[in-house]
Amino acid sequence: MASFSVNNRSYNLPSRPVAVICIDGCADEYISESIAQGYMPRLEAMVKSGYRGMVRGALPSFTNVNNSAIVTGAPPAVTGICGNFFLNPETGEEVMMNSAEFRRCDTILNAAADAGRKVAFITAKEKLRTVLGDGIVERGGIAFSSEKVNEAVASTHGVDNAEDIIGKPKPEIYSGDASIYVLEAGAALVEQGKADFLYLSLTDYMQHKFGPTDQESLEFYQQMDEQIGRLLDAGCVVAATADHGMNAKNDSNGEPKVIFVESLLQEQFGKDGISVICPITDPYVVHHGALGSLVMVHLDDPSRADELMDFLLRQEGITEVYNREMAALKLELAPDRIGDITVLSGRDVVVGKTPEHHDLSVLKGGLRSHGGRYEEMVPLLLSEPLNAEYKLIATGDPRNFDVFAFACNANA
Amino acid sequence: MASFSVNNRSYNLPSRPVAVICIDGCADEYISESIAQGYMPRLEAMVKSGYRGMVRGALPSFTNVNNSAIVTGAPPAVTGICGNFFLNPETGEEVMMNSAEFRRCDTILNAAADAGRKVAFITAKEKLRTVLGDGIVERGGIAFSSEKVNEAVASTHGVDNAEDIIGKPKPEIYSGDASIYVLEAGAALVEQGKADFLYLSLTDYMQHKFGPTDQESLEFYQQMDEQIGRLLDAGCVVAATADHGMNAKNDSNGEPKVIFVESLLQEQFGKDGISVICPITDPYVVHHGALGSLVMVHLDDPSRADELMDFLLRQEGITEVYNREMAALKLELAPDRIGDITVLSGRDVVVGKTPEHHDLSVLKGGLRSHGGRYEEMVPLLLSEPLNAEYKLIATGDPRNFDVFAFACNANA
Repeated sequence: MASFSVNNRSYNLPSRPVAVICIDGCADEYISESIAQGYMPRLEAMVKSGYRGMVRGALPSFTNVNNSAIVTGAPPAVTGICGNFFLNPETGEEVMMNSAEFRRCDTILNAAADAGRKVAFITAKEKLRTVLGDGIVERGGIAFSSEKVNEAVASTHGVDNAEDIIGKPKPEIYSGDASIYVLEAGAALVEQGKADFLYLSLTDYMQHKFGPTDQESLEFYQQMDEQIGRLLDAGCVVAATADHGMNAKNDSNGEPKVIFVESLLQEQFGKDGISVICPITDPYVVHHGALGSLVMVHLDDPSRADELMDFLLRQEGITEVYNREMAALKLELAPDRIGDITVLSGRDVVVGKTPEHHDLSVLKGGLRSHGGRYEEMVPLLLSEPLNAEYKLIATGDPRNFDVFAFACNANA
Repeated sequence: MASFSVNNRSYNLPSRPVAVICIDGCADEYISESIAQGYMPRLEAMVKSGYRGMVRGALPSFTNVNNSAIVTGAPPAVTGICGNFFLNPETGEEVMMNSAEFRRCDTILNAAADAGRKVAFITAKEKLRTVLGDGIVERGGIAFSSEKVNEAVASTHGVDNAEDIIGKPKPEIYSGDASIYVLEAGAALVEQGKADFLYLSLTDYMQHKFGPTDQESLEFYQQMDEQIGRLLDAGCVVAATADHGMNAKNDSNGEPKVIFVESLLQEQFGKDGISVICPITDPYVVHHGALGSLVMVHLDDPSRADELMDFLLRQEGITEVYNREMAALKLELAPDRIGDITVLSGRDVVVGKTPEHHDLSVLKGGLRSHGGRYEEMVPLLLSEPLNAEYKLIATGDPRNFDVFAFACNANA
C-alpha cells in the first residue's frame, strides 16, 4: 500500500477515496441526540459497523487551533497556531493569524498531494482556507471555501466552475447551509472523480445558535447525514471529528455568564501594564461576541504573574490558570504565541476582556460557546472497524488531530 | 403535589414510584455503544421520549464521593466524603470512611421516608449501605446490598426474606450479576408494592474489566436494559446517572501507566515527612489495584507544598495540582478531609503511592480506572421530558448529584 510521511507521522493511502470531516463545534451530544431521534440513519449505520469513540482536542478549544492541528497531525506547540489572535511580543501588536505564514509545519494535505493523491480542502470559513490551504493548488489540488466559492478560479483555487460542479450557488455564511454546502462540494468532487483525498471543514454557526435537542439542530444534522451518505455511497472511507465541543454559557435568566478578566484585574491591581487578549476573536463575531472559555493575560512586568494568578484562580467560574511556561507545557502551546497568563473558565462560563469590548447585542437567544476544558472532548466517527493497533490507541488518549491517522491507518 | 426539603433543596413527590439508578463507572460511551449495537432498546426508547444529556460529577471521581453527593444532593464540601480513605489530621491515622458517622448531612432517602414514601436503598457494594443507608430502616424503609443480601433481616435491613422477594440467591460480588441483582431487587420491590422511592446503586466491576465495545459489556448492558424495562413497566419515573466515568490507563504494551507519587517525591525531596494516600482504596481492590487518577499528598511541613507542587505539575501525565486551600475551593472538597496537595492525572494515566504498595498482579487484562477530571462528565438519563425550568438547568452546569431533583422536579 502506498504511504507518505509528514511531521514525523506515517499515513497509508487506501485505494478508496478518503474523506475527513471536521464538524465544527460538534459536542458528542449532537450525535447522540440526532441518532436517538432518527435524524442520522446513515451515520447510525456507519458507526455501528465502523467505530464511534471520544478523542481529546487541542486547547484552546478554538476552530483555527484545532483545524491546524487536525490538518497537520500535530499539537499547537508544533503548528504555532494557538488562537485566532496573538500579541506579537516583538511589536506589541495584536495580530490575527489569518495566513499560512503563521503555521510552523506543513500539512497532511500537501504531503498526500505529493504522494499522488487528488486533494481537496473545502471549508465553510474563508479564514481556514487562508491559514491551511497553501500549497494544495500548486500541487494540482482544489481548495476553496463555501463562504467565497464564487471567487474560486483555477489559478488560485484549483477549480473554475465550483458552483456548477456542486450544482448550487454560494450559501449564506451565517447559516447551516454554509456547512452542508461543504459536504455537497466534497461529495460532488468525489462523485465526479475530481478528488480522492478530502478535508471538509464545516462551520459552527448552527451549534452556537442551537442545542442538540433543538429542532433546527436535528434538521441540520439530518442534512449532514444525507451528505455523509453520499460520501459513503461514493466509496469513501469517512472519518469525522470536531475541532471543539459547545456549551451554553448563560445564567439562570438566560443572559451570558461572563467574567471580564481585564476589568477584574485592573480593578484589583491597577490599570497599568495589564491587557487581555481574547483569542477566540475572529471575523464571525455573530457566533460568540468574541466570548469563549479561554483568554490570555499579557503583563508589562511578567514577575507580577504569580500574584495575579492566585487572585484569578480564586474567582468562581475560573477553572484553570497557568503561567506562560506551564501553559506551554500542560496545554501543548507555543510559548511565544501565548500570554503571560492563560485563563480557562467552566462549563457554563466565558471569559472576556471588558464590558465595552464585547457587543452582547449580537447574541440573540443566549450564548453558546467554547474554548476551555469542557469543550475539549469530542467524538471520533469512522466508517471502518478498527484494527488491533488502533483498538489499543483508541483506548489510550487519542486526539482529534489523529483523525487522518485513523482514516488512513486504522483499517490497514 | 407533596414535597419535602433536605440540605436546602426541595423535591416534589410524583404520584408514581421514583427509581434513581447510579450506574457505577458508566462513561457515556457505554450508553452510546450499547444503544448503537441494539443492546438497550428500552433505554433507547426511554431517552427518545425523555431526556439524555451530560452532567458533571464530583471530584475525586470515586464511588463513595459521588454516591454520597447523589444521595444528599450536595457536593463533597458539604457531605465531608472526599474519598474512601482519609488521613485523620488529629490522630495521623489512615481512616476508611466506611460508616455514616463520617457523613456531614442527611440523605434525600431519609427525608423522602419522613415525607411518607416507602424508601428502598439497594446497593451492590456493602460499603455503600454502611455509609449511606443509616436511618432508612428506622423510618420503615428497606436497605441492603446484593453483596450481603443473605444477611438482610427486618430489624436491620427492613426486610427478612430479600432473596425470596427477588427470586434469586445472592450473586458473586465480582460479577455483572452483582449489579443486575440490585436492579432486579428494585423492580421486585416496586412490583410487589414494597417500595415507591428507590435508590439503586450498582458496581463498576464490569466497567473496570471491559470497554464499551466488548461483547461482555454489551451483554451486561442488555441485562441492565431488561431491568430498566421492568421498572418502566411498573410505572416508575426512572432517572439514571453515574458516579464517575471510566478510562483505560495503559501504555502501548497494555501495561498500567502509573506515576508512583510518593516514590517520585521522596526520590526528589527526601524520605522524611512526605506520604501519599490513595483515596480510591477500598475493599474491592481487584477492580483497580487501588490505582486511580487522584491522590493526596500529606506533608509534615505544609510550607513545602509550593516547591513540591511545581515539581509535580511538570511531570508528564500529571494534569492538575492544588494545595489544600485551592483544592477545597476549586474541587468543592472539605479541607480537613484532604491532603496538603491534591494531584490529578490524565485520561490514560493513574497515580499511586509506591510500587510496593500496589499489587498489579490482580489486574488481569490491563487497568481501567477513574478518579480524575477525565472521568468527571457522566450521562444523565431520564424517562420524562424536561419542563422549561429544567431545560434551562440542563444547559447550564448540571451535576450528577442533581439526579434526584431531575427525577422529582423536572417533569412537574
